[in-house]
Amino acid sequence: MKKILLDHGSGGKVSHQLITDMMLPAFDNPILTQLNDGALFEIEGKRLAFSTDTYVVDPIFFPGGTIGDLAINGTVNDLAMCGSTPLYLSVGLIIEEGFGFGDLEKILAAMQTATQKAGITVVTGDTKVVPKGAADKLFINTSGIGIIPPGIDIHGHNARPGDRIIINGSIADHGISVLTRREGFSFDSTLMSDTAPLNHLVKRMLCVCKDIHVLRDPTRGGVGTSLNEIAANSNVGIMIHEDKIPLKPEVSAVCELLGFDPLYIANEGKLLAFVPAPDVEAVLAAMRHDSSGRDACIIGEVVEDNPGKVVMQTRIGGSRIVDMLTGEQLPRIC
Amino acid sequence: MKKILLDHGSGGKVSHQLITDMMLPAFDNPILTQLNDGALFEIEGKRLAFSTDTYVVDPIFFPGGTIGDLAINGTVNDLAMCGSTPLYLSVGLIIEEGFGFGDLEKILAAMQTATQKAGITVVTGDTKVVPKGAADKLFINTSGIGIIPPGIDIHGHNARPGDRIIINGSIADHGISVLTRREGFSFDSTLMSDTAPLNHLVKRMLCVCKDIHVLRDPTRGGVGTSLNEIAANSNVGIMIHEDKIPLKPEVSAVCELLGFDPLYIANEGKLLAFVPAPDVEAVLAAMRHDSSGRDACIIGEVVEDNPGKVVMQTRIGGSRIVDMLTGEQLPRIC
Repeated sequence: MKKILLDHGSGGKVSHQLITDMMLPAFDNPILTQLNDGALFEIEGKRLAFSTDTYVVDPIFFPGGTIGDLAINGTVNDLAMCGSTPLYLSVGLIIEEGFGFGDLEKILAAMQTATQKAGITVVTGDTKVVPKGAADKLFINTSGIGIIPPGIDIHGHNARPGDRIIINGSIADHGISVLTRREGFSFDSTLMSDTAPLNHLVKRMLCVCKDIHVLRDPTRGGVGTSLNEIAANSNVGIMIHEDKIPLKPEVSAVCELLGFDPLYIANEGKLLAFVPAPDVEAVLAAMRHDSSGRDACIIGEVVEDNPGKVVMQTRIGGSRIVDMLTGEQLPRIC
Repeated sequence: MKKILLDHGSGGKVSHQLITDMMLPAFDNPILTQLNDGALFEIEGKRLAFSTDTYVVDPIFFPGGTIGDLAINGTVNDLAMCGSTPLYLSVGLIIEEGFGFGDLEKILAAMQTATQKAGITVVTGDTKVVPKGAADKLFINTSGIGIIPPGIDIHGHNARPGDRIIINGSIADHGISVLTRREGFSFDSTLMSDTAPLNHLVKRMLCVCKDIHVLRDPTRGGVGTSLNEIAANSNVGIMIHEDKIPLKPEVSAVCELLGFDPLYIANEGKLLAFVPAPDVEAVLAAMRHDSSGRDACIIGEVVEDNPGKVVMQTRIGGSRIVDMLTGEQLPRIC
């Protein structure tokens, strides 16, 4: 009998297959099939975004964050990537029997700080406890609602040839910093997860350019998978430049040591923005005024060649196809 | 060190303590502290309800339902209990590595049927896979958004002396039917879970009486706990009559055998309605036209005595205080 593999949760190729083959047919409707970071719809003339994400990261405490702030920031970011102003969150906890009150307090405190930073309100919640061994410590679902201001149309199918592709900083920090705390690894590292709310950054960007075409936070599956999704949804080619992609030397070293490609490693405080070329300098300048955007830079552009494909110009002058993530290299990263 | 116990997820007294002592202080805001089945708020003049629930029922297939339809119906019902028309749902899955595709297909099919019955649309989702042993088969979070029609004000603090308390049918069917399929029990039973969407029933009720004061679905913690919550929130006394509470002979027999009080056993297709006395016959008549309301009846009334308390007139003519559930008798029931 066919069984679910870790790879089905990787966010890569096999995850997409599961969603396309099983989830979409079960719940088929035009809002769901848009496959954005969040659902976009109108209720009585108000344009809303609605998003959900479940967090199963292991370990629950990692350098730079906890499962708690990760869960708040993650859904805030999914809402921001729809161009919406995040307003309200729900929190659903699954706690393993025997989990320490002290740890729960720490995680709730981290969630509280994260909601304050993002300026969002947790308005409803649910707590389930399962017997020891039926879950691993703590899982958190957050769902959220945001409102989309008039004139904003940000969507994975909006990339157009000529768009410049911006990233707000170095890639793969989250995945590699979680990895360094996994059992069996003992890297002596100062690297931290990049988990952060990006809604304030997006607000600054939209202030100078309402016409941003696509926003996407490259979480599970990394920058490589996110760019592939956008290339496919918009039916355009994407060209990125290896020497332009910010990568910390420490992250690069761990990736080389373990054979990971940083393009497929999860980020939790990064965004990709597809911006019309005439607006790109204004957007970059606005981003650099925000603490989450200081290292913003252009990593590539949308092209007419190779529609649906992502091509990278390598540092040594060649070019290679960047495919979606296949196989799961780092389970339970978010 | 203080640890989380199964009782913290029971929906009863200890759950409430956890919420009051830890969750509310962390996320303190006036919407959350209303402690309704869903959060109620306005976005640009539109009154919305927003609710979340995580489902960890064991077994995932039980007489009359699966974890899938339970997850759809549960959030639809929470939205309906706010007086809202449920519109959109999110679905977040946590799947254990090795889970069978065949079982996943069955559960998705059950979810599909449930969304069609309720007339609700799943617009966004998330799938996580955790390694074998890190979760027990499958957990599902559903969150949902509904819109509240003008003139409706249904809330746990609205019960008033003189209100009649209606239930739409027999109690404890869900909890006992799940129990009969647990490992270690081998009841030969035709009893089925009552899992069902209640939004159509609520619509009928609101058509004949916009002034329903309280609606509540007595899930975890059962009718006893729900009535206690309402008595406390509204600061009123509640009197119920044991001989008026519908109970199937089979459920009664299992409860007697195992020492369970059916007042504390979960329901998944039942509602309690607090209705002004002059409207009660019209509401009952409307309910009986709905397949989920055929057995609707009055089980008690709101009184001025004993504010904050629930008192039951027993079958033998005495009266006893019905407290909130203390201690967890049936973990993983929803």
